[in-house]
Amino acid sequence: MPPTVNRPAALEKGDLVGIAAPASCFDRGLYETGLAILEGAGFSVKVPNFVFLREGYLAGPDSARAQALMDLWLDPEVKAIFCVRGGYGSMRILDLLNWQAIKKSPKIFMGFSDITALLAGFYNKGKMAVFHGPVLTSLARDAADPKAEMLAALEAMRPDKALVLQAQDPLEIAPGRAFGPVVGGNLSLLAHLVGTPYFPQTKGAILFIEDCAEAPYRIDRKLFHLKMAGLLDNLAGVAVGRFCQCGSEGAVEKVLQKALAPLNVPVLAGFASGHGPVNMAFPLGIAATLDTKKASLAFECPATKAL
Amino acid sequence: MPPTVNRPAALEKGDLVGIAAPASCFDRGLYETGLAILEGAGFSVKVPNFVFLREGYLAGPDSARAQALMDLWLDPEVKAIFCVRGGYGSMRILDLLNWQAIKKSPKIFMGFSDITALLAGFYNKGKMAVFHGPVLTSLARDAADPKAEMLAALEAMRPDKALVLQAQDPLEIAPGRAFGPVVGGNLSLLAHLVGTPYFPQTKGAILFIEDCAEAPYRIDRKLFHLKMAGLLDNLAGVAVGRFCQCGSEGAVEKVLQKALAPLNVPVLAGFASGHGPVNMAFPLGIAATLDTKKASLAFECPATKAL
Repeated sequence: MPPTVNRPAALEKGDLVGIAAPASCFDRGLYETGLAILEGAGFSVKVPNFVFLREGYLAGPDSARAQALMDLWLDPEVKAIFCVRGGYGSMRILDLLNWQAIKKSPKIFMGFSDITALLAGFYNKGKMAVFHGPVLTSLARDAADPKAEMLAALEAMRPDKALVLQAQDPLEIAPGRAFGPVVGGNLSLLAHLVGTPYFPQTKGAILFIEDCAEAPYRIDRKLFHLKMAGLLDNLAGVAVGRFCQCGSEGAVEKVLQKALAPLNVPVLAGFASGHGPVNMAFPLGIAATLDTKKASLAFECPATKAL
Repeated sequence: MPPTVNRPAALEKGDLVGIAAPASCFDRGLYETGLAILEGAGFSVKVPNFVFLREGYLAGPDSARAQALMDLWLDPEVKAIFCVRGGYGSMRILDLLNWQAIKKSPKIFMGFSDITALLAGFYNKGKMAVFHGPVLTSLARDAADPKAEMLAALEAMRPDKALVLQAQDPLEIAPGRAFGPVVGGNLSLLAHLVGTPYFPQTKGAILFIEDCAEAPYRIDRKLFHLKMAGLLDNLAGVAVGRFCQCGSEGAVEKVLQKALAPLNVPVLAGFASGHGPVNMAFPLGIAATLDTKKASLAFECPATKAL
């Protein structure tokens, strides 16, 4: 069974948000723009100096990125942690985090793409709900309406809010209604967590996947990998987000259809979450109902008592 | 401990070679050229009609590709099986093969890149030595001297031959001498076998890796995945083949150095095996001595009694 998770308290205007760079180094201009969006939404921010380190394609050495994240996590003033950028490097710090300490103080953590590794870690090892949603550089560069995207993310963080994600371009791959905690994130990252202690428990869960800039045969390969490892067995359902720049028109849909339809669980594609102009935030680890007819993913409310 | 493997008998001029297309569909011209190289080396060939099927990026449906490979394998006239092309699709047929039947009749099987999935399967499940070496389309398109490459492959198949691979551009990442069976192949494919029953037993083994057209951070990610899954623990050593088109000059070497040097086993890069103008064939599953000072990988001879 999927772990029972703690759900962190909602984020309120004026709260202190910690900024982490657990993965790739980043463009300073995008970072500044992203930060301004966050401050414009009414939050104060805490930016450790560590954020600006750089080591090749990484935002500093593994030990520094891990330490910076732990420091933010254990800072009682910090109510939430947002990430600057994905890219690569989150999985490199998983073994360096103090899960026992993290577990004791649930707080809001949001990110996507490479950050999927940390989302999986906080969920699996930290036993808490986490948030699949924008990072500063995606707010700054990709979001069609960054302010609205930020506000939607804050709404998604409210444990008292009946969050319903509506698929933007619904594609019913297999019809039905499914109920279970939503887990997952970036498909590439999920594939690279197979066989490690961090892969999220998928049995009985609604698996969410998204990806970007991967050829259709690579999407096929990642899904087949999960299948061969038994990780698509006994899912409750599948919710598919964006697969942007994944080959010619309709190519990736064909791959998804072929891989997911035979699972005999409800599968709905077309959620506007992931890489792209709209990245709808939502909680991971919280139970939801996937309804392919209504083209929606409706999260339980209240999911668990807010802490 | 790595499994004890059967080593198939050498391939002699005039022998019948079966042609398999277990993965991607292919260019017919390259196929014809590759076939001519094989025939020029003195072999007759058996080409099942199935080879020319096509389903999207695959050379026909999974069931047909698996059936064609099984038919060739169980044909007593066929002494060896060579592949037309890698690409993608080998892992899709692993669960469809009859390993018990395969195990009973060891024969020469050669390929690389995507074919790594089958090399791993035949080694792990079929308990036999297999050959990491060219496919028809790489002989036709990539090989600087296809005839010489083919002859070298045939030499590598002789169980009575003291095969010594000399690194072309030796880079000593960690010095020393190591002894163990050589396992591995394409790093991308290996990463996509983690957590499945096909990942080769790496404890006590010399891990061989190569890759093509993957950015340095992706090579890092694949190696880190293997490390997180415990698959780099207790290796005897690492032999690194070509990493072609993997970023700017020296970038991938840096990644390999950072990932492999801390393993505390001998690591030598620079073997001319994998994607590129020279693809030196060698057996997998056969014990060898890696000597970073001599810049060589010397296979045991006789490895096991030829069958």
